[in-house]
Amino acid sequence: MMICKVVGNVWATKKEETLSGMKLMVVQEEMPGKKAGTVFVAADAVGAGIGERVLVVYGSTARRAFGKDNVPVDCAIVGIIDSLEVDKESIQRT
Amino acid sequence: MMICKVVGNVWATKKEETLSGMKLMVVQEEMPGKKAGTVFVAADAVGAGIGERVLVVYGSTARRAFGKDNVPVDCAIVGIIDSLEVDKESIQRT
Amino acid sequence: MMICKVVGNVWATKKEETLSGMKLMVVQEEMPGKKAGTVFVAADAVGAGIGERVLVVYGSTARRAFGKDNVPVDCAIVGIIDSLEVDKESIQRT
Amino acid sequence: MMICKVVGNVWATKKEETLSGMKLMVVQEEMPGKKAGTVFVAADAVGAGIGERVLVVYGSTARRAFGKDNVPVDCAIVGIIDSLEVDKESIQRT
Amino acid sequence: MMICKVVGNVWATKKEETLSGMKLMVVQEEMPGKKAGTVFVAADAVGAGIGERVLVVYGSTARRAFGKDNVPVDCAIVGIIDSLEVDKESIQRT
Repeated sequence: MMICKVVGNVWATKKEETLSGMKLMVVQEEMPGKKAGTVFVAADAVGAGIGERVLVVYGSTARRAFGKDNVPVDCAIVGIIDSLEVDKESIQRT
Repeated sequence: MMICKVVGNVWATKKEETLSGMKLMVVQEEMPGKKAGTVFVAADAVGAGIGERVLVVYGSTARRAFGKDNVPVDCAIVGIIDSLEVDKESIQRT
Repeated sequence: MMICKVVGNVWATKKEETLSGMKLMVVQEEMPGKKAGTVFVAADAVGAGIGERVLVVYGSTARRAFGKDNVPVDCAIVGIIDSLEVDKESIQRT
Repeated sequence: MMICKVVGNVWATKKEETLSGMKLMVVQEEMPGKKAGTVFVAADAVGAGIGERVLVVYGSTARRAFGKDNVPVDCAIVGIIDSLEVDKESIQRT
Repeated sequence: MMICKVVGNVWATKKEETLSGMKLMVVQEEMPGKKAGTVFVAADAVGAGIGERVLVVYGSTARRAFGKDNVPVDCAIVGIIDSLEVDKESIQRT
């Protein structure tokens, strides 16, 4: 799971049918000690809002978040992070 | 889903049979605040045109966009982006 | 499998239902001869603790570690490394 | 799909049984405007030759190119590129 | 398939049950013309030894190398490279 922040919204009227009704959000990967991660679009399975830190799954796993295997979704928000605690003696900083 | 722009066309006469009839387009990843993303080929599921910004899925998910599991396609255009709104206070710029 | 170190914990109250009860840990990729690898979240299948070196699998394989295919987990800790021995004449250092 | 060039051959006598009879080729990713892409090995499904530009699929999709799901192949050449046309006003150069 | 060299061994007593009996080896990606590739762990399906050049598959494909879909293995050694021939006029060097 990637640690991401929700940074925006995206609208697409013309899209693959099975995507209708899905809430698509722009997210950015956020790594402790690093800046400006990858920006991409994920389908929201938990009701996340702009500015929240979230857990994002990728690949075939993203479809599992919606309980069906036929949605053309490869990134999904599956959790909203309450807190994240990193052990300063274990992590390596750049 | 990757945020991409359609930047070209590609033709391949000699190809795996099940690819026949598929519209293959050259796309480039486009991240807000970054330049010159990866260039690759995606099969179009929504009727996209050169210069349009699109949503691209990757991996096994790409096959879902065509409703069959046997096509040798690992990237698919699944939506045409109307608008994309990024919150300036949330996103980190390089 | 990635060679990682467990570097932290993460809490998410609001999450996809099937994630309930799973132990989520923050891990960092650790490559011999390199520093400050990628930081992400993995579900623990073996009872790992902070500071331990672990083996992490990615993608659809992560779901296999939990013996069910419907969990929205794309990274799993599947082993705790006792020792790792690298042949100095074979490995290339940066 | 990646845009690659076939750059070599590879031989492996001792290999997983189901790989027998497969033609393995060394390919290099080739992106318009970039140089010296990743070099890896792909199984050829279309009869490609050294120096040709090809379309390569990755992951579970590669197995689809051979019409069976049990081959341990994660990269496959699925088309030979006749021509590739890039719109100069749409693409971003490094 | 990645071109790798076997560079070490790894031991993990505490691990996911279905991994028992699998031979895990430390491998390093090796690209013609590049140095010091990624180091990771792969399960050996062909009896490879330290210092040998091997073909490694990734993702769901790695499970195919063991003929069962439930092993939590995402990287597998599927062939030992006898020889690799690269066409100097086709490959691009960094």
